[in-house]
Amino acid sequence: MKCYIGIDLGGTNIAGALVREDGEILKKNSVRTLADRGPEAVSGSIAELILSLAEGREISGVGVGCPGSVDDEAGDVVFACNLNWVHYDLRKVLREKTGFCVRLVNDANAATLAEALAGTAKGAESAVIVTLGTGVGSGVVLGGKLLTGYTGAASELGHSVIVANGEPCACGRRGCFEQYASATALTRMTKKAMAAHPESKLHAIAAEQGKVSGRTAFLAKKAGDPVGAEVVREYIGYLALGLGNIINAFFPEIIALSGGIAKEGEYLLEPLRKEVEKQEYAFSYSKKHTRIECCSLGNDAGVIGAALFSKE
Amino acid sequence: MKCYIGIDLGGTNIAGALVREDGEILKKNSVRTLADRGPEAVSGSIAELILSLAEGREISGVGVGCPGSVDDEAGDVVFACNLNWVHYDLRKVLREKTGFCVRLVNDANAATLAEALAGTAKGAESAVIVTLGTGVGSGVVLGGKLLTGYTGAASELGHSVIVANGEPCACGRRGCFEQYASATALTRMTKKAMAAHPESKLHAIAAEQGKVSGRTAFLAKKAGDPVGAEVVREYIGYLALGLGNIINAFFPEIIALSGGIAKEGEYLLEPLRKEVEKQEYAFSYSKKHTRIECCSLGNDAGVIGAALFSKE
Repeated sequence: MKCYIGIDLGGTNIAGALVREDGEILKKNSVRTLADRGPEAVSGSIAELILSLAEGREISGVGVGCPGSVDDEAGDVVFACNLNWVHYDLRKVLREKTGFCVRLVNDANAATLAEALAGTAKGAESAVIVTLGTGVGSGVVLGGKLLTGYTGAASELGHSVIVANGEPCACGRRGCFEQYASATALTRMTKKAMAAHPESKLHAIAAEQGKVSGRTAFLAKKAGDPVGAEVVREYIGYLALGLGNIINAFFPEIIALSGGIAKEGEYLLEPLRKEVEKQEYAFSYSKKHTRIECCSLGNDAGVIGAALFSKE
Repeated sequence: MKCYIGIDLGGTNIAGALVREDGEILKKNSVRTLADRGPEAVSGSIAELILSLAEGREISGVGVGCPGSVDDEAGDVVFACNLNWVHYDLRKVLREKTGFCVRLVNDANAATLAEALAGTAKGAESAVIVTLGTGVGSGVVLGGKLLTGYTGAASELGHSVIVANGEPCACGRRGCFEQYASATALTRMTKKAMAAHPESKLHAIAAEQGKVSGRTAFLAKKAGDPVGAEVVREYIGYLALGLGNIINAFFPEIIALSGGIAKEGEYLLEPLRKEVEKQEYAFSYSKKHTRIECCSLGNDAGVIGAALFSKE
C-alpha cells in the first residue's frame, strides 16, 4: 500500500504523519512552530519533519495543510494571518530542502478531505463537513474531490445568509449562517437568555464554568433548566435551517459536524436530525436521506487530509 | 462530428432535435403531446419523432428530458404531475420501439446542461443556471457534469432559506429564495407597493398590461416612477443576496439567468452585478469573480441539453 506524508502547519505546532493510502497513520511527530522565527526557519523545521518521517520508506506524495489562503497551482501561501506570511513560495523552498514535490492545501480543506475519505464519511459518494467553532467552517467533497470552485474560495457555507438583514458578520454581510450556528452565536443567545431570566440555572452553571460558553446552555438543559432547553432549541432550529439549505443545494450522502459544539454528540444530533428532516426538499421522491453524524478523526484530520490531498 | 437526438417532453408539445456534439442543432421537429392519450400513445409519438430525426444518420445517443422526477438508472419516469405519469418505464418502451438505448433527464436539468455546455457558459469550468419564473429553478454543472447529489434532488437552490421565518413556501419551509426572487415574488412586492402608493405610475402601467406582473415594476422604473424603482431595488437586493449565497457555496465561473425576469437583460444585470459584488465572500484573495449573464439558448435549451446528456 502506498504511503504519503501529511503536514499540518499550525500557529503553535507543526504536526506531521506518515499516512497509508487508506488514511491509516503509521507514524507521527510534531515540533513547535515558533512563527516569530520567520518563514525560512519555519520551513526548515517542516523540511526536517518531512525527512524524518520519510526515512527508509518510499513516499508517493507530500501534502502540507496551511492556515489561510493557499494557491496550490503556484505553490504559494498567498496569505496566512496567523503566521504573518504573505506570498511565500513554500513549495519551492520545501522541494529544495527535501527533494519532494509538495502539494499545498488549506488546512480546513485538508481536514474535510480526511473526514470524507478516511473518517466518518469514508465510502460516501459525497460529504459536507461543517465545523461549529468560533465561526462556522465548511468543506465539500464530491466524488472524492474537494469543491474549491473557480476561485478556490468555494464551500464557504458559513457565509450563506439565512436571516436577511440579521446579525452583522465579520465578512461584511448580515445574517450569515455563522452568526446563528457557531459556538460564538450560541454563547450570545445564552447571554441574552441569562439577562432575561435571572432565575435560570444558566447563571450557576456559567459561574461554575468560569464563563459563558457554547456548553452552558447544553449543561443547563441536562440539569432540567427550561431556559437552557429553550436556548438549545433555538440554536438547533437555526443549525437545522442552515443544514437544510446545504442539503437542498448539494444533497450529500453525509453531513459530518466537528468543532466544540459537535462534542455534545448524540445529545446534539438526535434533536437536530428531527429538525433537519423538516427542512429537506419536500418534492424529492427519493427514499434516500442525508445522514448527519459527528466527525471521527479529531486532531489527526489535518495531517491525514494533507497526505491524502497529495494523492490527487 | 458525432450526432445525438434530444427530446423535450412537455405537457403541450414534444420537441425533438438532431444535435451535433458541440450543441449545434442540425434538424428539429415537434408534435403535440396530447397527454390525455396516456403514456403508451405518447411514447409512440416520441418514438416516431426519434426515428424521423435519426433517418439516414449514425446516432451516438438519445436523451429525453421529462418534467418531474426521473430515475435515469432505472429508466423510470418516477413522477410527472403535468403528464399524470407515475413510475412509467419510458426507457424500456422507447428501446423496444426505436432500438436506441435512451437516457432520461429532468427537463430543467437538461436546459441547465445545455446552457453550461453550449450556451452562455460554454467553455466555463462551472456554471449555475437560475430560472426566475413562477418559481426559482436552478441547476449546477461542475466540470461538465450535472450536480444531482446522493438522491438526484440536489441543486434546489430556490428552496434555500434566506429569510428565517419569512414568507411561507409551497415546499413547507418559510423564507425560501423562491419567495423573494421569482416573478411571483416580484408581482407580490409590486402589488404591495401599489396598495401603499395610489399615486404611483404602477397603477396605470398595470391597467395597460391588463394585470400586475414581474414586468410592471421594471416598466414603471423605466417611466421614471420612484415607487417602481424602489420595488425593483428591493427585488434586486434579495436576488443579489441569494446569488451571493450561491457564489459562496459553489463559486462558479458563471451564473446564467433565465425565465421571465431575465428578459429585462442588462436593465436587470447591471444593477444586479453591483449588488452581488457586495455579497461575495470577503476573505477570498482571488482576483477572479463569478460572471453574471443571461441564458442564450431560449426554448432550444431543452432539446440540446437532453441530447448532450446522452453523451455522458
